Amino acid sequence: MIGPLWTKQKSVVVGLMSGTSLDGIDAAIVSIEGSGLAAKAELLHYSSVPYDDGLRERLKELCTIEHSSVDLVCGMNVYLAERFAEAAIEAVRSAGMELDEIDLISSHGQTVWHIPEAAADDPLLVRSTLQLGDLSVLAKRTGRVVVGDFRPGDMAVGGQGAPLAPYGDLILFRHPEKGRLLQNIGGIGNCTALPAAAGPEDVFAFDTGPGNMVIDQTVYLLSGGQMSYDDGGSWAAQGTPDEVLVDQMMEHPYFALKPPKSTGREVFGKAYAEQFVSLARARCLNDADIVATATAFTARTITEGYLRYVFPVCEIDEVIVSGGGAHNAALLAMLQQQLPEQAVITSSVLGFSDDAKEAIIFALLGNDFMHGVANNLPSATGASRPTVMGKLAFP
Amino acid sequence: MIGPLWTKQKSVVVGLMSGTSLDGIDAAIVSIEGSGLAAKAELLHYSSVPYDDGLRERLKELCTIEHSSVDLVCGMNVYLAERFAEAAIEAVRSAGMELDEIDLISSHGQTVWHIPEAAADDPLLVRSTLQLGDLSVLAKRTGRVVVGDFRPGDMAVGGQGAPLAPYGDLILFRHPEKGRLLQNIGGIGNCTALPAAAGPEDVFAFDTGPGNMVIDQTVYLLSGGQMSYDDGGSWAAQGTPDEVLVDQMMEHPYFALKPPKSTGREVFGKAYAEQFVSLARARCLNDADIVATATAFTARTITEGYLRYVFPVCEIDEVIVSGGGAHNAALLAMLQQQLPEQAVITSSVLGFSDDAKEAIIFALLGNDFMHGVANNLPSATGASRPTVMGKLAFP
Ligand SMILES: Nc1ncnc2c1ncn2[C@@H]1O[C@H](COP(=O)(O)OP(=O)(O)OP(=O)(O)O)[C@@H](O)[C@H]1O
Ligand SMILES: Nc1ncnc2c1ncn2[C@@H]1O[C@H](COP(=O)(O)OP(=O)(O)OP(=O)(O)O)[C@@H](O)[C@H]1O
Ligand SMILES: [Mg+2]
Ligand SMILES: [Mg+2]
Repeated sequence: MIGPLWTKQKSVVVGLMSGTSLDGIDAAIVSIEGSGLAAKAELLHYSSVPYDDGLRERLKELCTIEHSSVDLVCGMNVYLAERFAEAAIEAVRSAGMELDEIDLISSHGQTVWHIPEAAADDPLLVRSTLQLGDLSVLAKRTGRVVVGDFRPGDMAVGGQGAPLAPYGDLILFRHPEKGRLLQNIGGIGNCTALPAAAGPEDVFAFDTGPGNMVIDQTVYLLSGGQMSYDDGGSWAAQGTPDEVLVDQMMEHPYFALKPPKSTGREVFGKAYAEQFVSLARARCLNDADIVATATAFTARTITEGYLRYVFPVCEIDEVIVSGGGAHNAALLAMLQQQLPEQAVITSSVLGFSDDAKEAIIFALLGNDFMHGVANNLPSATGASRPTVMGKLAFP
Repeated sequence: MIGPLWTKQKSVVVGLMSGTSLDGIDAAIVSIEGSGLAAKAELLHYSSVPYDDGLRERLKELCTIEHSSVDLVCGMNVYLAERFAEAAIEAVRSAGMELDEIDLISSHGQTVWHIPEAAADDPLLVRSTLQLGDLSVLAKRTGRVVVGDFRPGDMAVGGQGAPLAPYGDLILFRHPEKGRLLQNIGGIGNCTALPAAAGPEDVFAFDTGPGNMVIDQTVYLLSGGQMSYDDGGSWAAQGTPDEVLVDQMMEHPYFALKPPKSTGREVFGKAYAEQFVSLARARCLNDADIVATATAFTARTITEGYLRYVFPVCEIDEVIVSGGGAHNAALLAMLQQQLPEQAVITSSVLGFSDDAKEAIIFALLGNDFMHGVANNLPSATGASRPTVMGKLAFP
């Protein structure tokens, strides 16, 4: 067996995150002291590179059974790695730094499929997850050591491979007196409950359901492809949610599943949104009402998750929203309205920009890999044991 | 930057190979002293686990654009890793060893797609290669450190990612006085020319074309799925090759390409064999003649490759055949007949069993990764520089 790859007390790590909403690549340059739960992270720089529309459409296709194929998986794996390398290099450049000041690049990869439970009807569709963005290509292009592709490591020890962020949430946000709920609203919504003075066993986390995914797809459909998200929530603000339809949508079996649980584009993707828009049209809603309904549904998936699975077991003082959904004022207002007893704030208020948080967390996971420190959180993923997730490639 | 992961002078490595002929998993337990070109390898044990027919058919589907999809890539990546883990554990058990005597598992993975040159009509189909069998799953299941997924590292520095075996051929077979041609006949055929007293720059290697792939598919079609290869070449021995058809098949543009060059199932796979069988039937060949013609074609792809690209630049005394095709007596006889001036022998004569050679080579590549030693051979792959290929996962 081999020991830790690093004995460094302090390192500079570029964390790369490209989430399920397929918006692009987030790069956080993070100075990290120590490792594991004792790590202290300081964000030196954050930047983001959007995917262009053509790439996004091809990625959406790749995330469907019908329109995907092995040649595109093969090519995309390298194509994306080259985009990740450019994003990392651009982040370093715009931070006024040099590549050789970077000790490590840690990359989440682009999730294109996730099978949380084995399929009953096909023995080959075992529990698994697929993140693209080849680590060797990223390492050779940037000249830096690269760690990434974390999720399969957790799934291999019985976890769901998701959510991974709670581990970082615990490191970055645990509070001695306050109970905190971290709500990330990316493509998917996921929450982490941190009771006051939480340790690893106390953390409680699950995917609440779609994050911006249903809103984004709805806006895309209604705008005839002109808009890919509801900027600031302004379209939703012009409409009125159809609460009957929202109630009906809340009957989806995902919301009755007990945590730990995770979901993805294969459940709440394009087909789901198309079905929702038809239902809404059949109920004679106008476009603004439809967007408002998608937004209200998203808010309800979040708050219902709390009511059912968090509040009964844990006292919460603050709900801290991060991810792109933190920019959607209509969504935030609905959340605050449905949570009268908690303060709904955004993570930037606490010093970690809403957009950068996930990328920072992946920097922490890569740093732990180098220290040989387990970087999954069994209480969040359902894994049978702590383990070192990730793979390493040399430049 | 980090230094070598190992300072070990001697290590025990399980090399795992699962080739393009989709026959199964070869496992070689190898004791390795040193690293790089100076490495000395001793084969401690070899065993092989066949894929069952159901899995092989699903893998063949996965290797087509039409029948593949992202969910199957996702599931198969983990499903195969579990089979690889079983094969490694079974090899260790049948060698009478314990898992904790193994320092490393080094896995090639199952190639399901390979794009040697970027597609002209699709910017996403960049130069790339896709090997399945997740390294984290393999590491967690076996409890051993795992290295694997080598090919993308070579492609990222401008190589074709293939052939990789010549690097190992050089280590295992270079001879001070004899010029040697190493011919592996797996799914694909590939040769390595080792001039007498060769150094890394003198090595010359390329894929000769289909190895057993066309023979296998032909036998499968003609036997109505009852046979998957021509055991010992006995079916071919009962027929007469149609030399006119062989000449016609040799007009395929691959054979006129100058090395370095590589090919795969996407060129000489199912569709190619189906077309060949129709052509042969149209020429009124009986089944034995058709198998003999497929075999003669395979022999010609090999010897023509030598005549065009090897013999003009390098003196060769011995042709050393390895891989499953070394068991096909009809094929070996045709090779010897077409090469009157060379001795055609099999690698087992030199102490490395025909079947184990590639698995031994992947053990060498993994060992080099741990020593931080470049393990690609630019003269064979066309890479712009030597580099450390591979990725590492912890148990
Ligand atoms: N100004 C804005 N107004 C409204 N919504 C926004 C705004 N900016 C971003 N978003 C939303 O945030 C999404 C991107 O969020 P984020 O980057 O957190 O998701 P992700 O990381 O890709 O997904 P996940 O975390 O689920 O993997 C966009 O698709 C959009 O819906
Ligand atoms: N007894 C035999 N007689 C004839 N052919 C055989 C015999 N045993 C194996 N083969 C052939 O060898 C093939 C397997 O060869 P091998 O294991 O070297 O290929 P591979 O490693 O899967 O492919 P590659 O090296 O191209 O990746 C079988 O599919 C079959 O065609
Ligand atoms: Mg994002
Ligand atoms: Mg084989």
